[in-house]
Amino acid sequence: MQIILLSGGSGKRLWPLSNEIRSKQFIKIFSNGGNYESMLQKVLRQIQEVHSEISITISTSKTQEKILKKYIDSDVEISSEPCRRNTFPAIALTAAFLHDVKKIPADEPILICPVDSYVDNNFFESFKIMAELVKNSPTNLVLLGINPTYPSEKYGYIIPASKENISKVLEFKEKPDAETAEKYIERGGLWNGGVFACKLSYLLKKADEILKNYSSLPNISFDYAVSENEKNISVVRYSGEWKDVGTWNTLTEVMEENSIGKVYFDSTCENSHVINETDTPIIAMGLKNVVVAASPDGILISDKNRSSFIKPLVDNIHEQIRFAEKSYGTYKVIDIDENSLTIKVVLNEGHKMRYHSHEHRDEVWTVIEGKGRIILDDEIKFVEVGDVVKIPAGMKHTIIADTNLKVIEVQIGRDITVEDKILWE
Amino acid sequence: MQIILLSGGSGKRLWPLSNEIRSKQFIKIFSNGGNYESMLQKVLRQIQEVHSEISITISTSKTQEKILKKYIDSDVEISSEPCRRNTFPAIALTAAFLHDVKKIPADEPILICPVDSYVDNNFFESFKIMAELVKNSPTNLVLLGINPTYPSEKYGYIIPASKENISKVLEFKEKPDAETAEKYIERGGLWNGGVFACKLSYLLKKADEILKNYSSLPNISFDYAVSENEKNISVVRYSGEWKDVGTWNTLTEVMEENSIGKVYFDSTCENSHVINETDTPIIAMGLKNVVVAASPDGILISDKNRSSFIKPLVDNIHEQIRFAEKSYGTYKVIDIDENSLTIKVVLNEGHKMRYHSHEHRDEVWTVIEGKGRIILDDEIKFVEVGDVVKIPAGMKHTIIADTNLKVIEVQIGRDITVEDKILWE
Repeated sequence: MQIILLSGGSGKRLWPLSNEIRSKQFIKIFSNGGNYESMLQKVLRQIQEVHSEISITISTSKTQEKILKKYIDSDVEISSEPCRRNTFPAIALTAAFLHDVKKIPADEPILICPVDSYVDNNFFESFKIMAELVKNSPTNLVLLGINPTYPSEKYGYIIPASKENISKVLEFKEKPDAETAEKYIERGGLWNGGVFACKLSYLLKKADEILKNYSSLPNISFDYAVSENEKNISVVRYSGEWKDVGTWNTLTEVMEENSIGKVYFDSTCENSHVINETDTPIIAMGLKNVVVAASPDGILISDKNRSSFIKPLVDNIHEQIRFAEKSYGTYKVIDIDENSLTIKVVLNEGHKMRYHSHEHRDEVWTVIEGKGRIILDDEIKFVEVGDVVKIPAGMKHTIIADTNLKVIEVQIGRDITVEDKILWE
Repeated sequence: MQIILLSGGSGKRLWPLSNEIRSKQFIKIFSNGGNYESMLQKVLRQIQEVHSEISITISTSKTQEKILKKYIDSDVEISSEPCRRNTFPAIALTAAFLHDVKKIPADEPILICPVDSYVDNNFFESFKIMAELVKNSPTNLVLLGINPTYPSEKYGYIIPASKENISKVLEFKEKPDAETAEKYIERGGLWNGGVFACKLSYLLKKADEILKNYSSLPNISFDYAVSENEKNISVVRYSGEWKDVGTWNTLTEVMEENSIGKVYFDSTCENSHVINETDTPIIAMGLKNVVVAASPDGILISDKNRSSFIKPLVDNIHEQIRFAEKSYGTYKVIDIDENSLTIKVVLNEGHKMRYHSHEHRDEVWTVIEGKGRIILDDEIKFVEVGDVVKIPAGMKHTIIADTNLKVIEVQIGRDITVEDKILWE
């Protein structure tokens, strides 16, 4: 059995902790033995607890590949799309990677699982039954159906032929209204949690068929492209804990504590959660059913039930991203002025920036921690705490971290944009 | 007539916009023709509208004197206490200043008024009646009694002898419980808003008497030291708008708009106010009766009715102050790290820092706007945008702003504290 984890998506619904370049699966919010782990880390840990020595491939986009590598062990494979599409192209690409690069046999069962489900280990135990069905039954596709706990309008429904734990699938239903959802549940309907299993050959065949009909890979989900057209499908029922933690409301339901970071509650707050990623303190008084999330990019304060409607408000905000994880470490915008921008850059030991120059701005680097080497127009210079380097516009430059390294970078110029960057390697 | 405005106090109750060094009377929060003015500016403007060419002296503490000067016209006098006491010592000191320095005649009526009352111009009209009484009646002290609008437990009560607009005072009552407050109101009781009038000679005499009984000036209010022992008092009734804007709840009641700064409300927020002094956006969704205030020092999110109980929570926070107004401009802490601190300093044209040095830290200055002169160990150096200056520990330094000037200052050292500062002038 091979597992493909789907870890894409930019997710504005967990703003300001997720943004265009920082996906929700990287937010460290889940308590695990005193530390916080991200959704991605939690799912990887659980899979490895249940399936020792299983082979995992993470399907992601090119833009997230480098960040992803910081969060995973080296024995997890990564398959990257050159640009973001929907789940079907991502899965097709990963299938080709498994077949062509990893030489996985065509009849190997493949388990495909999104990375944003908050579940207990039984969820991953079900994968064994699914793989067994793929191997030893004539079914083409096996889904995991989540036992619904209420008539949700947020999920697609799978209508099984029987109430058995393993059943043929009669039909798929798109997200219904609450009334229709009730009827589906009466018929034994299950939520479609986006987990499915099939042989590698099946994925390759479907990719091939669909490629014939399209000149380029379309923005299309696997459900739409494959599942809904397949007649020979089974579903395995899962009745354990399952939460889609894609909104602040559902995310706070699975938090162990009511706060993360510098937060001071008064005694009259009820059912409220504050996640503070900034280093300024937050005082919360008399809040009821409120979620607060603060990062260098912004502050959300929302009634929990309203928090799922955040997207259009975030779409309205056209601000530069303040905090980002990079392959080499992190950067944080600490001051924005008319003709300058000040940034704190953290480079992890052994990492470096790409060799680059700017057309329209000068930069001043002040090393505040660590040791490294700076290259300026091909000349190397050793630097340590307290060293200051001026980089005029046009000069090629990079910094190599010989230890963990922190730099305050002051950018000065009339038109400071991230686009003003010429790469020299 | 002379007016003494009392503008002291550090006020944690409007945290995070007020702090130890930034008093609530300087927060620019009151809409006035498209601009925002502070409480101090509003009161000064109103007094000048009602009393043309009146002489105003602001009684404040030494620590606030320089900031105060940035907010007022040059024709307003300032009398500063060397350290903070209560209202009685502040008033006594200002009386001495008026008599000894300003040579005000002893029989001149003096109006004393706190700076934190949100009122309409009629309030200041009443001062004329009060001054008239001081001048032409045998009463020693004239108070302004606020017509109570509800049985508040927050104010002291003045019990007048009659229901006339001008009446003798029968007695003073400390802040009562609600039930007692109702009884006071039935007896015609008025709120004590802290405004009173008397002859300058009366203030000088009282100061003299009290000084004889105390070896040093105690922390004592004027009400306690003088009013409550005085038999010959009148009260003038004021029935217009009067709001004590000392808490977030009462402050939001007088705000014209529901937000200041970068704030995005969804359509389901009700009776909620957001004041955002940071440059990161705030999204507010589904909030009911909530006040939010954000500054570089912190974020408050409070049910409006709870907001008056903030003080003990602020007392718990032991953070460095991030933003401060200085005589020369402003400074803002933009990054705190283990062995460094990064600050943005804004100097107004013609201003300078004091000449100083540090024992335990180096500093790097990068000019990001304007022109000026830097003095390093008595040597002068002209600087402009893009210039970088390294200041090792021990070196005396200052900067003089020839235009408005902005500097990013990176402090590097093991024990960075505000105390590590040696002044050389």
